[in-house]
Amino acid sequence: MLTMQDALLRLTEYWAGLGCVVSQPMNTEVGAGTLNPATFLRVLGPEPWRVAYVEPSVRPDDSRYGDNPNRLQMHTQYQVILKPEPGNAQELYLDSLRVLGIDVDAHDIRFVEDNWASPALGAWGLGWEVWLDGLEITQFTYFQQAGSLPLDPVAVEITYGVERILMALQGVNHVKDILYAPGLTWGEVYGQAEFEMSTYYLDSADIEANRQLFETYEAEARRMLQLQLPIPAHSYVLKCSHAFNVLDSRGAIGTTERARAFARMRNLSREVAELWIERRKELGHPLGDESAKPVKALEISEFPHLDAPAPLAFEIGVEELPAAEVTRQVEAVREALAEKLAETRLGHGEIRVFGSPRRIVALIDAVEPVEAAHERTIKGPRVTAAYDEDGKPTRAAKGFARAQGVSVDQLERITIDGVEYVGVRRPVAGRPAAEVLAEVLPAVVLGLRADKNMRWNAPGLSFSRPIRWIVALLGEHVVPFQVSTLVSGRVTRVHRTADEPAVEVPSAEGYLSFLAQHGVLADFAERRAQIVTQAQDLASTVGGVIDVQAESDLLDEIANLVEEPVPLLGRFDEKYLALPTEVLSTVMRKKQRYLPVRDVAGRLLPYYVAVANGECDVELAGTGYDAVLRARYEDASFFWKNDLKVEPAKMKHGLAKLTFAERLGSMADRSARIASIAYDIAERIEISADDWDVLARAASLAKFDLASEMVIELPTLAGVMAREYALRAGEPEAVATALYEMELPRHADDELPRTLPGAILALADRLDLLAGLFALGTTPSGSSDPFGLRRAALGVTAILREHPLLQVLTVEAGLVLAGRHQPVELSEQALSEALGFVLRRIEQQLLDAGHTTEVVRAVLPVASSPAVAERSAAELSELLDDPEFKQVAQAMQRVRRIVPAGTPSKYYPALFHSDAEADLHEALTKAQNDLAGAEVTPAQFLDAAARLAKPIERFFTEVMVMVDDDPVVKANRLGLLSSVRALGEGVIAWDQLTI
Amino acid sequence: MLTMQDALLRLTEYWAGLGCVVSQPMNTEVGAGTLNPATFLRVLGPEPWRVAYVEPSVRPDDSRYGDNPNRLQMHTQYQVILKPEPGNAQELYLDSLRVLGIDVDAHDIRFVEDNWASPALGAWGLGWEVWLDGLEITQFTYFQQAGSLPLDPVAVEITYGVERILMALQGVNHVKDILYAPGLTWGEVYGQAEFEMSTYYLDSADIEANRQLFETYEAEARRMLQLQLPIPAHSYVLKCSHAFNVLDSRGAIGTTERARAFARMRNLSREVAELWIERRKELGHPLGDESAKPVKALEISEFPHLDAPAPLAFEIGVEELPAAEVTRQVEAVREALAEKLAETRLGHGEIRVFGSPRRIVALIDAVEPVEAAHERTIKGPRVTAAYDEDGKPTRAAKGFARAQGVSVDQLERITIDGVEYVGVRRPVAGRPAAEVLAEVLPAVVLGLRADKNMRWNAPGLSFSRPIRWIVALLGEHVVPFQVSTLVSGRVTRVHRTADEPAVEVPSAEGYLSFLAQHGVLADFAERRAQIVTQAQDLASTVGGVIDVQAESDLLDEIANLVEEPVPLLGRFDEKYLALPTEVLSTVMRKKQRYLPVRDVAGRLLPYYVAVANGECDVELAGTGYDAVLRARYEDASFFWKNDLKVEPAKMKHGLAKLTFAERLGSMADRSARIASIAYDIAERIEISADDWDVLARAASLAKFDLASEMVIELPTLAGVMAREYALRAGEPEAVATALYEMELPRHADDELPRTLPGAILALADRLDLLAGLFALGTTPSGSSDPFGLRRAALGVTAILREHPLLQVLTVEAGLVLAGRHQPVELSEQALSEALGFVLRRIEQQLLDAGHTTEVVRAVLPVASSPAVAERSAAELSELLDDPEFKQVAQAMQRVRRIVPAGTPSKYYPALFHSDAEADLHEALTKAQNDLAGAEVTPAQFLDAAARLAKPIERFFTEVMVMVDDDPVVKANRLGLLSSVRALGEGVIAWDQLTI
Repeated sequence: MLTMQDALLRLTEYWAGLGCVVSQPMNTEVGAGTLNPATFLRVLGPEPWRVAYVEPSVRPDDSRYGDNPNRLQMHTQYQVILKPEPGNAQELYLDSLRVLGIDVDAHDIRFVEDNWASPALGAWGLGWEVWLDGLEITQFTYFQQAGSLPLDPVAVEITYGVERILMALQGVNHVKDILYAPGLTWGEVYGQAEFEMSTYYLDSADIEANRQLFETYEAEARRMLQLQLPIPAHSYVLKCSHAFNVLDSRGAIGTTERARAFARMRNLSREVAELWIERRKELGHPLGDESAKPVKALEISEFPHLDAPAPLAFEIGVEELPAAEVTRQVEAVREALAEKLAETRLGHGEIRVFGSPRRIVALIDAVEPVEAAHERTIKGPRVTAAYDEDGKPTRAAKGFARAQGVSVDQLERITIDGVEYVGVRRPVAGRPAAEVLAEVLPAVVLGLRADKNMRWNAPGLSFSRPIRWIVALLGEHVVPFQVSTLVSGRVTRVHRTADEPAVEVPSAEGYLSFLAQHGVLADFAERRAQIVTQAQDLASTVGGVIDVQAESDLLDEIANLVEEPVPLLGRFDEKYLALPTEVLSTVMRKKQRYLPVRDVAGRLLPYYVAVANGECDVELAGTGYDAVLRARYEDASFFWKNDLKVEPAKMKHGLAKLTFAERLGSMADRSARIASIAYDIAERIEISADDWDVLARAASLAKFDLASEMVIELPTLAGVMAREYALRAGEPEAVATALYEMELPRHADDELPRTLPGAILALADRLDLLAGLFALGTTPSGSSDPFGLRRAALGVTAILREHPLLQVLTVEAGLVLAGRHQPVELSEQALSEALGFVLRRIEQQLLDAGHTTEVVRAVLPVASSPAVAERSAAELSELLDDPEFKQVAQAMQRVRRIVPAGTPSKYYPALFHSDAEADLHEALTKAQNDLAGAEVTPAQFLDAAARLAKPIERFFTEVMVMVDDDPVVKANRLGLLSSVRALGEGVIAWDQLTI
Repeated sequence: MLTMQDALLRLTEYWAGLGCVVSQPMNTEVGAGTLNPATFLRVLGPEPWRVAYVEPSVRPDDSRYGDNPNRLQMHTQYQVILKPEPGNAQELYLDSLRVLGIDVDAHDIRFVEDNWASPALGAWGLGWEVWLDGLEITQFTYFQQAGSLPLDPVAVEITYGVERILMALQGVNHVKDILYAPGLTWGEVYGQAEFEMSTYYLDSADIEANRQLFETYEAEARRMLQLQLPIPAHSYVLKCSHAFNVLDSRGAIGTTERARAFARMRNLSREVAELWIERRKELGHPLGDESAKPVKALEISEFPHLDAPAPLAFEIGVEELPAAEVTRQVEAVREALAEKLAETRLGHGEIRVFGSPRRIVALIDAVEPVEAAHERTIKGPRVTAAYDEDGKPTRAAKGFARAQGVSVDQLERITIDGVEYVGVRRPVAGRPAAEVLAEVLPAVVLGLRADKNMRWNAPGLSFSRPIRWIVALLGEHVVPFQVSTLVSGRVTRVHRTADEPAVEVPSAEGYLSFLAQHGVLADFAERRAQIVTQAQDLASTVGGVIDVQAESDLLDEIANLVEEPVPLLGRFDEKYLALPTEVLSTVMRKKQRYLPVRDVAGRLLPYYVAVANGECDVELAGTGYDAVLRARYEDASFFWKNDLKVEPAKMKHGLAKLTFAERLGSMADRSARIASIAYDIAERIEISADDWDVLARAASLAKFDLASEMVIELPTLAGVMAREYALRAGEPEAVATALYEMELPRHADDELPRTLPGAILALADRLDLLAGLFALGTTPSGSSDPFGLRRAALGVTAILREHPLLQVLTVEAGLVLAGRHQPVELSEQALSEALGFVLRRIEQQLLDAGHTTEVVRAVLPVASSPAVAERSAAELSELLDDPEFKQVAQAMQRVRRIVPAGTPSKYYPALFHSDAEADLHEALTKAQNDLAGAEVTPAQFLDAAARLAKPIERFFTEVMVMVDDDPVVKANRLGLLSSVRALGEGVIAWDQLTI
């Protein structure tokens, strides 16, 4: 059996053989091999570098006392850097697995999108996690930035999770059981350290001491930067980082503090990186310069003459695209191709585009052999200058004609922008199709852009993942072109494990079938359909079904993770069904992309369908799939069991250890505040005695599950686990529900709390967050919203909108109320910012709901709550087309225009001089009576105020307001108008209407 | 060419193949692989453990900016632990060199005594540095103690100096030029880090920050110990240690602080070790228990009957003994064998014992075949109880006779301690020689003890190095016995690289020749003579000689470093002769054990003679020897050149960076104090104007060379380098000499300052040290004397003794004077302790000079200076045999006995009542006149006081002192006697004489 130490040796020999320097682990604790200067510094700058080393990586937060089968405070990474990226790193990597004795052909090995970023290092890259039968064994990244600086050339970083691989290879279920050396297990070698260091990191590290260490390290790093010494500075940045991680694992880091610490470390890292680059430049880049150089022109083939229309097959071959990008890029290529062809005169049939993880294929059935001919117009002198008074051609005309090789007689008159010129029209022959395509296709490639883009060894290109080949065939011939370092050709790549991984394409004709013969289904729809059919077939063999509706997103994703879907039925031990369904399905979907199998009643069965990519040893891969799920469920069971040992009220004590935010205390403090705010809200609304009881109990337990191991591990289960644990601890169902609902909505499309106690808690939760963080001045900016304030604001609006009883509470009142419970004062200024922040969410929602900017602007300033805003907007949107409303609105506008601000709404009918005045007074009084007491919506206003339109019109026609010689009357009239104006106040913002 | 990374891989594969766990470097900075828990913790307790790993070891003090060809702040250790020690670790190690491609047979590979101790870790072991053609490439240690706890079983620690080995293998002269990986040098991989980290450690590390780190780390370590977590505690001890090293390299650690920090770390390490052991015990020693178990009895052969005397060959085979032990153990075995044989009745001829690094051989030409027969006496009842009044045997006698199987008549009378018993005499036959020897020889082995002893896998044995085999042949037969795990036999071991490294010995006869045939010269004298002859022959080929007289100690050592001396003539580049001779010869002798070759005038020639052990490829080994010396001389030249760039006065500024001792400031402060004290001394004595000038200049530069790179590297050259650098900087020769002499004497047999300025400075230096450290209360205890106070005190006495002009200064006056310049008050108490401390040195010197305790005790209390003490002792020693002195002394004693302390020396001749009184008065007056004014030595005293003996005697005979009825007379007589007593006061301590 391959021992762990042998595995490390084999990897070292393999990569050393490929020119890697064999380096040593960092001599200070690091969370990952990336932080070792052999990576972090060497990826910077233009010098080439290949390195491989073991890095025992310390992650205090992953401490589990050695109990958890997979989670370790110190796990072993094997780190490889290839700089510049060699273009075939995936293939080199697969060979390294062979070296470890992994039968790459038999297993299902997949590159699944996983982008990597280290905010503390200012580093990021795009790439994958590599799956071995569903088990994540390696992180594979094209390193794009380090120390906040772009990398040129780009490096490939390959990070093997050594324990994971060995567990799979040795078929053991606990890291402790890995055979580390002959006769010695991992547990025997590292078990005690794992236990003790876990205890240190989780329970014992002195918080004050580690804070002090952080400060000291940072100060040393700063000093070293000032002294122009990047290497010692970097070493102290790493020490900072570890001290931070220790504090974090001790629960001593609040969100604010985290962001601040990250910013400090990021700044240090940037300066380290800049300094390193500078120093290497001074040293003259002793290892050479591999930065982007002008791309050499490569030899391009000739294209033969074509007579008849021919099919086009244009394939952009890539390394595995993220699932979401496959669909997006199919669309993008279709549009780009259509648009760019439209700019030519080349006739062509329908453009069909297909996509899979490794290719975007555009097919056109028939491309005309030649572009349509057309005329080109060449402009000469103005007519006025071309002919003299006698109508004879001038020297200018003659010269032009001569230059164009025509006689003066042949000059035509052309009008451009209303000016007449002489000119020549000349027929232009169409270019051959290949020539046109050789311009269009590279432009399409150059124009490719994804949501997140990367660079690789192809200067000028920027895409989701590296483009590695281009097939461009017109009929049987290659359309010859070069784009960056790529040259179009007829060789496509199929499965990496195929006997012939690269194959020549004879012709564009039937390209999809050709690919299918090689096991590649380029059509997403086909793949998805095949998955659905086969998955259902598999499920039915165990009496189950896949809920295709519910799993629609997952199916989309899976269909874009494979080129040749091979669904397999897997199973797990029934004992795990004792876990909550959400736990099981969350793990299956999110962690493994397995399709849950249910019985007809919708209950989970102990089966799943996983989808492998291409032919593999179904038995072998299936065993792997099962093992991975088992490990994950073991983890979950472990958490579940541990959590169940603790009563909710006791578990809640754990919240005290979770810092919420600096100056806002711990999660326990937050929970207490939520309870207080919830009581305050409940006092302001109608609520039954039963609901009061439920609320009181639930509030006393608020957020207790955040301290559970399950939620710490799977944070999306917050609330779900609260419900489960509360029920099992004997809490009433209503309390459990309220605890669940208080976390709703968790995202944009999520359900909302249905019960009143749940809604109150959910509202209190979000108001506390907003009030607290705005009080601190921590407002979201740009894309940075670490506390999820936007989501909280949206939650507030959704809950207030949803629950009629809660609508008596305005957003402002809620914030004021929540503000009172904060340990930091919520100033007027902060309150107003918080309110504005929530209103902007409502504004956006109204706009998203289709209301015009005019409507939204008109209702927002007077909308005390989202429900009001929504109703007002809805009514106003309708009313804007109502002629009656138009009249009233115009009348109100007129009134508002004439009445100076601050004019008292006071007048005396006795002073009326005209019927028009009395009329208006009478109509106004009636309307006032109609609207008295209630909040007024635009429609209600219209109902009551419709009758004012005419009297107002009459008033303005008949009555002179500005009677300058009778100020009393003038004032009385303005008083009357002011009363009219007051009637419409607070209904909508009339000045926002453009009527 | 084997790259460095390949070498590491090969070592890893080799040791993994021998069952070593392959571990990783420590993830915090460590100064050596020993500190890694895979060594430090795992060597503790009874569990077996084999491990191998690379350890990039960080030694801030060795920082040289990457300039020095051999000295690095981070060097690569390859560390191997074999626990329990397997008995053949040296052989396994040699095989590992073969794996690296080293032709072990061709090179001169040697195990040279090098014991290892880490005061901070409370760890030590005995072993060797392994020399490859004179180059130290590996540390090889039998680990005896860690964390101040004894190790059982003992582990072998093998630590390869990887860069050293690779430089030798690749034939490069600078570490930067090592080929680390294909196409990449060590310099390219690590050069920048070496420079920057050197800068950090030497110039830039913040001292306050690192002090604070030390405290924080220690506190965390303490907390972890309280929480019973040895592994995190150990990790913090390592961090402590690194912080300490950083402070040290910044020159921020004084000697006192160093000792204190070491004590703190040692305590922590001990507690860590205790806790680890406890924890492993609780865990039930999961890896097993290999601690010492009762030794199994092994099969022992029978020994045939012998008729005639036979020769004995008794060989104790050991791993390489320290050179000094070889001679010592030859003596010890001879004595033990003689003594133990004397306790038997076995007749034997002369015992001859020989020794070499790997064996002690005892030979006896003829051992009698059988012990001499003798009689045994068995004691019965007392005669008085054996016979009744009638002389008839009693029942007691009869019973005894019966029990002894004789008739009552056969009972004899035996006298024991003057009491008569009845008894039986019985003849005892001698045992065969083999039986006797089988008792005697193991007892010799068991009794072996060296200066420093170790344990290994042979319970009950304790010796300098492991004993691996025993040859015990009587004639042609093995004397069969077992001692611990060893069984006597006939197999000896010769050169490890011999075709047949273990050979059967046919017979004891001619054993030395047998060994010689196998290339082993067991006789030290023969080896030494051979070395001298051959070395002289070699030297003469280049017109040189070896100064056999001067190199006597070195020749002794070399002769005990080899079993088969093979002298080789080596050479070095003449350019190095530009370096001071002392530098060259110190390096040759101390670092390499090379014999310097000189011309007839005694000037160094660019040659040396090195002595290889056994046949090797002379060409190859010679190249190696040359290279090592070249590297060392390169180092020295490097220091020399750098130092010469700096004027002495400027170099002296560097002293400010060298802390001397906490509260006593820096070396610069000390230098200033020495100057002040020197002036004070000079003012008290007669000194010429010229000497004043010399003294003033030299004092202003005092100790400047301590800041030179050469002295930092080779501290024994302090003073020597001062002289060299001063001369080269244009200082007068006298000043240079004074600077040299101020460091004298450096050790017991060293020369003393000859010039007065030198002597004054040397004295001031030592007085400053004593006054300062006694003021601090830092007195030496037991074997701990980190500041060398004993040596300083000896220096004081030697200088005072040597220089007549200085003798006016008493030790006490000197200390008082030095005390005035200390920043810490020298209290009365401290002064008295310091004085006592110096006096104890004088006492010891006098005793060593052969004076009796009586003499020393008699002169010491009254010796104001060592010269006085010495002279007084010399005189007194002679006088003690002088009957005249005896008389005087007895008289003086008598007087002292009768005169109460404090009696005034006042009397009136007018009151004399007798001639005896007048006589005494007259004699006394004469003596007083003779002795007036001068310090009085015992001889002078005798000269003057001899005439007092008789009058005193007469006085006591004739005069009644205690005339109780005439107190006036009584007082007058006592006054007279008191005056006599006073005459002898201060000459010697009369009460110490036993006359």
